[in-house]
Amino acid sequence: MNKTSIIDQLTEAFRCLPGVGPKTAQRMVLHLLERDREGGRRLAARLSQAMDTVGQCESCRNLTELSLCEICASKSRDEELLCVVETPADVLAIEHSGSYRGYYFVLMGSLSPIDGIGPEELGIEQLLGRCSQGVKEVILAVGSTVEGEATAHYIAEVAKPLGIQLSRIARGIPLGGELEFVDGGTLSHALEGRKLI
Amino acid sequence: MNKTSIIDQLTEAFRCLPGVGPKTAQRMVLHLLERDREGGRRLAARLSQAMDTVGQCESCRNLTELSLCEICASKSRDEELLCVVETPADVLAIEHSGSYRGYYFVLMGSLSPIDGIGPEELGIEQLLGRCSQGVKEVILAVGSTVEGEATAHYIAEVAKPLGIQLSRIARGIPLGGELEFVDGGTLSHALEGRKLI
Repeated sequence: MNKTSIIDQLTEAFRCLPGVGPKTAQRMVLHLLERDREGGRRLAARLSQAMDTVGQCESCRNLTELSLCEICASKSRDEELLCVVETPADVLAIEHSGSYRGYYFVLMGSLSPIDGIGPEELGIEQLLGRCSQGVKEVILAVGSTVEGEATAHYIAEVAKPLGIQLSRIARGIPLGGELEFVDGGTLSHALEGRKLI
Repeated sequence: MNKTSIIDQLTEAFRCLPGVGPKTAQRMVLHLLERDREGGRRLAARLSQAMDTVGQCESCRNLTELSLCEICASKSRDEELLCVVETPADVLAIEHSGSYRGYYFVLMGSLSPIDGIGPEELGIEQLLGRCSQGVKEVILAVGSTVEGEATAHYIAEVAKPLGIQLSRIARGIPLGGELEFVDGGTLSHALEGRKLI
């Protein structure tokens, strides 16, 4: 097969997926062609539909095909809580944990001047506007990376004048974590954030 | 997001790919939506095109969008050699090794009565017909699995009356293989197939 056959073109197209190298792409293409054409057609249809119709929620910036996502449109949530996360995957993870019933705001990234991502790209203005809609506490659920820390710090600074309570999710040892294998920074956060029992 | 949102439908559709579970599917969907819509659209287009246009080569049964695949259409190969393989991936692997210049015949599976795969599904009749077109040697390059052994045995039986030379690719230790970690069956094949130096 030369480089322009339809099979090669499809293999090349699969490479846009994260974690898919040439071997995996080839395996996916041959699997679909040999065993699951119906699945392949369905994937093609869903993919083209999603790429064209999914946009961002007007209120929380999460990915959705609606103008207001289902979480923001829900009336049964605690409107006093607003959880600020970096990505749509974070929303899914928190929702999956079932431990939060407030609303979200998705930054779609974290502060990283070197990549040209500043407050404007993260919709900080929109976040401040959202805070004035009956929110009592803003929970910063950003990652504990350098960019995450910078983002949390920046939001804390600009949100301070609004007089809203600000909190940051706890940093400490993960469930099932053994102290021996936990890094020093995490341990110092865990000790600092200790709770009386 | 409920179970019928477009994002969830797309995540579900990605699950038809081999080795893709719910987490990987979610990562793929979010990656495309957040960072590579163009790649997603291209994948959708290529996918739908391939699912509808790719069929089998008239001569070797390999996957191709042409009626005669490029290898079979090539005039510069050794027409006395016919290599019988189980899958299109095997053709790609042998072509990639650059060590074979004959033609191929793709069984598209191996004998497995329990799965309803008999000689008819493997196109054995077509293979015998192909053998009569100037082929001098049929190389059985099937896997060394139970099904592969059965397939090789069956083809050897039915092809015997044609008076064509039949061979089977060597079984032995793989390159870089240490004897200590090679199984007994492989070692016994390797000893049996030893060559004078």
